[in-house]
Amino acid sequence: MKERVFNFAAGPSVLPLEVLEKARDELVSYGDSGMSVMEMTHRGKDFAGIFQKAKSLFREVLSVPDTHEILFLQGGATLQFASIPMNLLRGGTADYAVTGVFSGKAAREAEKYGKVNLACDMSASGFDRIPDQRDLETSEDASYFYYCANNTIYGTEWHYVPEVSSALVCDMSSDILSCPVDVSRYGLIYAGAQKNIAPAGLTVVVIDRTLAGRHLDITPEVMRYDALIKNDSMLNTPPCWCIYMLTLELEWLKRQGGVTAMDELRRVRSGMIYDVLDNSGFYISMAEPGSRSFMNVTFRTPSAELDSRFVSEAEREGLVNLKGHRTTGGIRASLYNAMPPEGAAALADYMKRFEAQNRCFR
Amino acid sequence: MKERVFNFAAGPSVLPLEVLEKARDELVSYGDSGMSVMEMTHRGKDFAGIFQKAKSLFREVLSVPDTHEILFLQGGATLQFASIPMNLLRGGTADYAVTGVFSGKAAREAEKYGKVNLACDMSASGFDRIPDQRDLETSEDASYFYYCANNTIYGTEWHYVPEVSSALVCDMSSDILSCPVDVSRYGLIYAGAQKNIAPAGLTVVVIDRTLAGRHLDITPEVMRYDALIKNDSMLNTPPCWCIYMLTLELEWLKRQGGVTAMDELRRVRSGMIYDVLDNSGFYISMAEPGSRSFMNVTFRTPSAELDSRFVSEAEREGLVNLKGHRTTGGIRASLYNAMPPEGAAALADYMKRFEAQNRCFR
Repeated sequence: MKERVFNFAAGPSVLPLEVLEKARDELVSYGDSGMSVMEMTHRGKDFAGIFQKAKSLFREVLSVPDTHEILFLQGGATLQFASIPMNLLRGGTADYAVTGVFSGKAAREAEKYGKVNLACDMSASGFDRIPDQRDLETSEDASYFYYCANNTIYGTEWHYVPEVSSALVCDMSSDILSCPVDVSRYGLIYAGAQKNIAPAGLTVVVIDRTLAGRHLDITPEVMRYDALIKNDSMLNTPPCWCIYMLTLELEWLKRQGGVTAMDELRRVRSGMIYDVLDNSGFYISMAEPGSRSFMNVTFRTPSAELDSRFVSEAEREGLVNLKGHRTTGGIRASLYNAMPPEGAAALADYMKRFEAQNRCFR
Repeated sequence: MKERVFNFAAGPSVLPLEVLEKARDELVSYGDSGMSVMEMTHRGKDFAGIFQKAKSLFREVLSVPDTHEILFLQGGATLQFASIPMNLLRGGTADYAVTGVFSGKAAREAEKYGKVNLACDMSASGFDRIPDQRDLETSEDASYFYYCANNTIYGTEWHYVPEVSSALVCDMSSDILSCPVDVSRYGLIYAGAQKNIAPAGLTVVVIDRTLAGRHLDITPEVMRYDALIKNDSMLNTPPCWCIYMLTLELEWLKRQGGVTAMDELRRVRSGMIYDVLDNSGFYISMAEPGSRSFMNVTFRTPSAELDSRFVSEAEREGLVNLKGHRTTGGIRASLYNAMPPEGAAALADYMKRFEAQNRCFR
């Protein structure tokens, strides 16, 4: 077994070591069940206990009010790109703030099911920033306003909650549980779990119950929010193992001090990298300073060749998955909840050394 | 840790102990990656190796011809209930053989997207049998013929492949990889993995490539078979951990002798239980003898009260999850690939003792 690396992948991504160790220790036999969690019928009392624990912990950690239901689903954010308009767009218009690849995909998917208005389209500036509130062009009759809180690819993040008159719908895949959120302001929040909270294969949806039940007739049964709420996410077999992993992650997160502590930590971690960028004549930060993400720091060196060397030499030091997304190139360090501050410190240190060694190539 | 039980759950269900032990041993760090499989980016070389291994092993074990693509998806069989008509039903009629709850649900879902003809509806006899070939009423212009190979709830199984002129579509969720299949006869085979091959959260689709690309315009992007084939199942993040578990399961299955050995084993296991039923004046077998399932054996005692006692006393002996489905009542023993023959033998022995002790209550 190789020594544990610092994994800067954008998702799936790092999980807390003590969460993995606990999962390992009880993998073959969970509690006094005499079987693995992976073998449990989802209708039995053992798994019911895990499922309810995941729900109640999630409600507690994110302070989800009683007006909102928590769903544990499959299909990823990409299936939600369709589920959201199929369930919420009946006959109306939806406002989409396009600030990156995934919000763009969501908007195009919604066009299949109704009218879409682009409240903003930040492609002109290469998605390097989040618009100001005053620049959002909303429609009068909108069914909802959609945005993606953090743009994993471009390293930008909304630092305010949009003020809109329609239901607020937010993709929080890459910053869910990284900071406190006033859930009562949202109609629907969702997140693919594989970045910040659990392994790939689980999608968490938090929905204001009053929004359910307005789906189009062509909505697949298993995508209807009202049916999913009625069946407590168990319209069919849920992704049981991922839900179990979520309980371990939530327990860990509580022990660390909850989302308030996560918010402090994400500022510390990303701050270490942004400090290096801001004090360098070598690295180029890719996101506008006012729109910078706490979760994904994007930057480049003076050349694509040096970017590649940066990534491969880092790997030899156990700092892995630093290559930027294929649409942007460059370098990306994803710093999710489970990344220890030591990982960010090691990266900052490496960046300084790499700069000193390669400055002459500018 | 409690001693390992014999788990007769209908799904999610038993996995081979050595598969679980291997998963445990490499959970925290996989090979020389320095991270857990659950932390791996799905676009990286480590996970790519796992993914390709899963595909090639599956192709080898089920003898999938090159004409057919293998997809690893999310959403369960229930999402396929919609995906299949959305992709294959354009403008035509689909024939559905309704032999149980799940094929009935699939037929109702398909009605949202086109015309459905019930090739048979076995509800009249309480779904206790599979129709004969001559009783299947197919339509002339059918786009496809849909059936469910094994009915988990009722304990019936198709012992022949329907002869039809349209594309054959089959839900093999509860008997996939339990016997050899001539895949070339099928247009599409799919299976929720959580019964016979892997943990919940993975759906395997085997599709004749010529069937892809005929989807309705309203099909969500992530449900389009052509887009999924083009992206080798990675249109979005796949359920990585379940795919990894599938590789371990397939390696185990090969070591056991493949699907031919599984076919022999399923006859041995279910034979032990059917023998007890056929030699008893106490138990009532629920499925017609000619339609009996090798995977799920359904029966009852003379009373619901005795059924309950049977289930709870069995549990004390480490024979768990024997309660029948809520729609049928009674008792159900699911005997999937990973159930050791010793489990079936222990159950048969318990059944005989229970009968001897309770015969007077008839």
